[in-house]
Amino acid sequence: MSYNDDQGDQERRKRMSCGLQIDCPINIQECLLSSSNDGYHFIVTHVVHPNYARFTSNKELSKIISRTDRILTGNDWNRLIVGILSHVNVDSEVKHIREHSRKIFLQELGFSSHLGLPAVMLSIHQRRNSNLAQILYNKFIIGTNYQVWIVLPIVHPTQFSPICTEDERENAWEWWNDLRRYCNFDKRLGLALEMTESDHMPTDLELQRWAGEPVKAVILPTSLFKLNQHKQPVLPRVHQDVVQKFLSIDVQYIIKGPVLNGTTYRQYNSYVHFLGKKLYQSSAMTEFVKGCEDYLQNPLQPLTEHLETMIYEVFERDQVKYVEYQRAIQKALEDLSSDIEIPVIMVVGAGRGPLVQATINASLIVQRKVKIYAVEKNPYAINTLEDRVQNEWGNQVTLVNEDMRTYNPPEMADILVSELLGSFGDNELSPECLDGAQRFLKRTGISIPCSYTSFLAPFQSTKIFNEIRTNRPHDKSLETVYETPYVVHLVNYYQMAQSKELFTFIHPNWDENKTNERYKSLKFTCPQNCLLTGFLGFFETVLYKDVTLSINPQTHSTNMVSWFPIVFPLHEPVQMYEGNSIEISFWRCESTDKVWYEWCLEAPIRGSIMNPSGRSYFIKKH
Amino acid sequence: MSYNDDQGDQERRKRMSCGLQIDCPINIQECLLSSSNDGYHFIVTHVVHPNYARFTSNKELSKIISRTDRILTGNDWNRLIVGILSHVNVDSEVKHIREHSRKIFLQELGFSSHLGLPAVMLSIHQRRNSNLAQILYNKFIIGTNYQVWIVLPIVHPTQFSPICTEDERENAWEWWNDLRRYCNFDKRLGLALEMTESDHMPTDLELQRWAGEPVKAVILPTSLFKLNQHKQPVLPRVHQDVVQKFLSIDVQYIIKGPVLNGTTYRQYNSYVHFLGKKLYQSSAMTEFVKGCEDYLQNPLQPLTEHLETMIYEVFERDQVKYVEYQRAIQKALEDLSSDIEIPVIMVVGAGRGPLVQATINASLIVQRKVKIYAVEKNPYAINTLEDRVQNEWGNQVTLVNEDMRTYNPPEMADILVSELLGSFGDNELSPECLDGAQRFLKRTGISIPCSYTSFLAPFQSTKIFNEIRTNRPHDKSLETVYETPYVVHLVNYYQMAQSKELFTFIHPNWDENKTNERYKSLKFTCPQNCLLTGFLGFFETVLYKDVTLSINPQTHSTNMVSWFPIVFPLHEPVQMYEGNSIEISFWRCESTDKVWYEWCLEAPIRGSIMNPSGRSYFIKKH
Repeated sequence: MSYNDDQGDQERRKRMSCGLQIDCPINIQECLLSSSNDGYHFIVTHVVHPNYARFTSNKELSKIISRTDRILTGNDWNRLIVGILSHVNVDSEVKHIREHSRKIFLQELGFSSHLGLPAVMLSIHQRRNSNLAQILYNKFIIGTNYQVWIVLPIVHPTQFSPICTEDERENAWEWWNDLRRYCNFDKRLGLALEMTESDHMPTDLELQRWAGEPVKAVILPTSLFKLNQHKQPVLPRVHQDVVQKFLSIDVQYIIKGPVLNGTTYRQYNSYVHFLGKKLYQSSAMTEFVKGCEDYLQNPLQPLTEHLETMIYEVFERDQVKYVEYQRAIQKALEDLSSDIEIPVIMVVGAGRGPLVQATINASLIVQRKVKIYAVEKNPYAINTLEDRVQNEWGNQVTLVNEDMRTYNPPEMADILVSELLGSFGDNELSPECLDGAQRFLKRTGISIPCSYTSFLAPFQSTKIFNEIRTNRPHDKSLETVYETPYVVHLVNYYQMAQSKELFTFIHPNWDENKTNERYKSLKFTCPQNCLLTGFLGFFETVLYKDVTLSINPQTHSTNMVSWFPIVFPLHEPVQMYEGNSIEISFWRCESTDKVWYEWCLEAPIRGSIMNPSGRSYFIKKH
Repeated sequence: MSYNDDQGDQERRKRMSCGLQIDCPINIQECLLSSSNDGYHFIVTHVVHPNYARFTSNKELSKIISRTDRILTGNDWNRLIVGILSHVNVDSEVKHIREHSRKIFLQELGFSSHLGLPAVMLSIHQRRNSNLAQILYNKFIIGTNYQVWIVLPIVHPTQFSPICTEDERENAWEWWNDLRRYCNFDKRLGLALEMTESDHMPTDLELQRWAGEPVKAVILPTSLFKLNQHKQPVLPRVHQDVVQKFLSIDVQYIIKGPVLNGTTYRQYNSYVHFLGKKLYQSSAMTEFVKGCEDYLQNPLQPLTEHLETMIYEVFERDQVKYVEYQRAIQKALEDLSSDIEIPVIMVVGAGRGPLVQATINASLIVQRKVKIYAVEKNPYAINTLEDRVQNEWGNQVTLVNEDMRTYNPPEMADILVSELLGSFGDNELSPECLDGAQRFLKRTGISIPCSYTSFLAPFQSTKIFNEIRTNRPHDKSLETVYETPYVVHLVNYYQMAQSKELFTFIHPNWDENKTNERYKSLKFTCPQNCLLTGFLGFFETVLYKDVTLSINPQTHSTNMVSWFPIVFPLHEPVQMYEGNSIEISFWRCESTDKVWYEWCLEAPIRGSIMNPSGRSYFIKKH
């Protein structure tokens, strides 16, 4: 029983990884042991113990760097220790300080590498860090194994300092942004954000931007904790909100500072784990997406590649979607003239039959007999459908193993039901398929869906930018992988403006001059300095009358999990300033055998057109 | 207590994965459930149940292929079912049989892909399989997820058939070899070898060759089992020997055929697991190499890249090596003239000090005081050594943080101790380093090691061939990765001849015209038809007099784990025939800043010279 309870707990909370910062422990083995007993997963400590002072008068570094590496096993150094680098200034304007700092800094990086530390941490104390960046980027390029975590306060102290004028106020994010730009957004460079006092907290907008950065750790000074009525240390509400914000990212927490008010380190650790349980909101969506976070998927090509059992199963698991379809079919059936004795409903792209089932359910609810055609081109899905006809549905369902675009039915349909929408609405060629299928829809007939609209929004995510370049297949150029859209469950990103409508398609469309080519330009306003790394795509669809589905954040259907957003990247992150007008041109293009998108940043700076003539990405029609 | 016992068991046996072949179960869910209850990890069954006969008279395939995919979840299809494909002949000389077979075969492959099966299995019944290969290679190229296991008897029945003449005897390995050559050795193509009767077993040579092939499964027909005195089914000794042979490869076992003599399927399964426990020989080596099997490592470049804590730790763990060094130092000390009051011993490349410790041990054993210099260029290792001087060794050890090639010592050494050998002996530039260091060795002094010799042997491993091409980094060409040697703990390979001596280096070497450049050509005889994919390199060294270390298979030091063999690949596997003379030319070349090897197959066919001027691989001197 208790075992099962534990399992439930695991599922309902976020696993929190928590470390303890002990600057200079007398005995590092004992420190590891006691912090592990207190529930900590790692410790954060100076790479060089201050006993080993190396700032000798003649500026030559001592040969003795620090404690012997043999005090711990390589495995422990590699898993349990995050190293703090000494505070030196490699960007000092004083030459000899700069040069001596550089020697010390390089020696400590070398020693960290020798120990095999997973990460080193260092603070920056000024905006200009070109020499620091030059050293770090060099290390990244020759291949370091450690991550580098830059320690910054989540709000710079000058922001709230009474002695600073407006000109003197520094912004921690700008410092970070400059530094990582020098290092070409290298993924080994991350952030350790230190939480500030509750009356010096970032605005919601600033917090959203931090959540789009590679935050590796959040530092929680013990001085921020208050005692609750049980004498336990707890964080004020404002700090909890920040923790909540970072919950979906893979952030580690670091407790720093002395134990205060008669508490123990064990209590701080327990509280962090308690927070993970308290703040984690489990839902159909959070369960469904586990393991997909920021993972790039290529959009499906269902017209040219047969879907497989696993994919059908994932689709069919989304109950929200099929309940809405059933409601739409029911309403459409209710609206059909009673002159029609037995309505003909054609499900085009029937798959393994969920929409056939929804249609049968609706017909039972409205107590109106229907005749169903299930049209499906995938021969292996037909195999499944045949079994359902024989064992579940009987002869009210007629199976047709053909492409809807060429099928010639024996009669015309009153209702045409399909689920051909991708993350961007039309990107799996629903317009082309339904234009073909409407040949056998009566002029008075209904298409479910009736219409769908794509949406776009600008966003920042160096995580996605890095995922694209590091996962490049051998046979593709960098240009190609950046001109390709990806379906992603985004987690580590910042959407900088509300999405706006792009293209709409309506079905049936009896216009003889209709085209599915489109062009539109959209404008957004940038609310704060940030990086534009691409655009997010969503869709909304009207199935019938007031029955809709949406993955657009403003109107997202509750608990619907079938679609993740689509990402249209740019070749390079583009610096944006508060108040900038962001403009994008977007095209949907078509040739005899394929459909593709092109996109181009128009403002604040003009980029080149991405994916001209579909050279890098297209959807095959055949 | 029992928990610990279990853990011990896990370590002392090989994990055996065992499946049950049930050609056409009436109910596949029940079959899965009962075989899982009997301890089986998967079942092997026909993709198309014979109830769904598709061989209709008009040669049109039926739309109904097999049972509905909904009888199992996608996850079960994907993990628990290996599919047997119907016996058709896509290589028939009769056109309509060939074409109809092709349709059926493609349909079943498509259905297997639809189900998401991990592997499909098919038998071949003739030597020529070009059409089969053409279909499979096409599928591999467009990207299938399933493996294809070719079922073959481990010895072809014609080999022992009384009605076959010598000309009519077929060799199963030749059939396989032809098929996989068509498919460019694709790693998704594997073998399911069916065990034959105990009086129709392969020769030891044939078995060695099979063990160098990608054998994915061994099929054990129940008819091969005998009952022991407890009425349990057991395999005869000859079959156990075959299982033993495949134990180090990741092979799965498949029980096939009816239960016989009142046994149960559960008993066959238990017996296979028992065999894993009985036959697995645990040793220092098997424990040490876990997880390294057939994994490519780049040779170290210790002259230009500092070794790190983890690597030093791995080295130091090899007790055999340091015991032998200690013995050698002891013997050398005993041989030193008693005129020398306090012998000077220089450990060059001291690392974290294991050879310093061995020297101190030897000096204590022979009760002769020594003065030790520990020369080490890595500043981070010096940090460790300093700690050992202060806390363990005292002032009998002098630390020198310099490169041995340029160091100027205050006195001359009686003994020079080093461990600079790589898997190929000289490949970490021991000759160049010791030539430099002997400047401070007395003319009467001793070098430990005194000499070392590299060895070469031809081998077959399409596994390694595939590892090299699939792990190619973005910035390297195929040519480059095949011209690079790798250090590998080889498991899935066949060494086709005993190794032969290549290059020898002797220290000290007072010859004024000495060079470390070398050339030699070696000849081997091929004992049976096979594929040559490259050459294996080993070394032997004489530390002092009769104290030696070796990783050459003929003379391998017992339980020494520090070195894996080195592999010199070829661009393409080369077909070899029984009796062929295999000849290779090998060069060690040197320029001012680097050392490299070149190698070239001379016979039976002449290849181009690999790695000319060290274009793809070299060892940097600085």
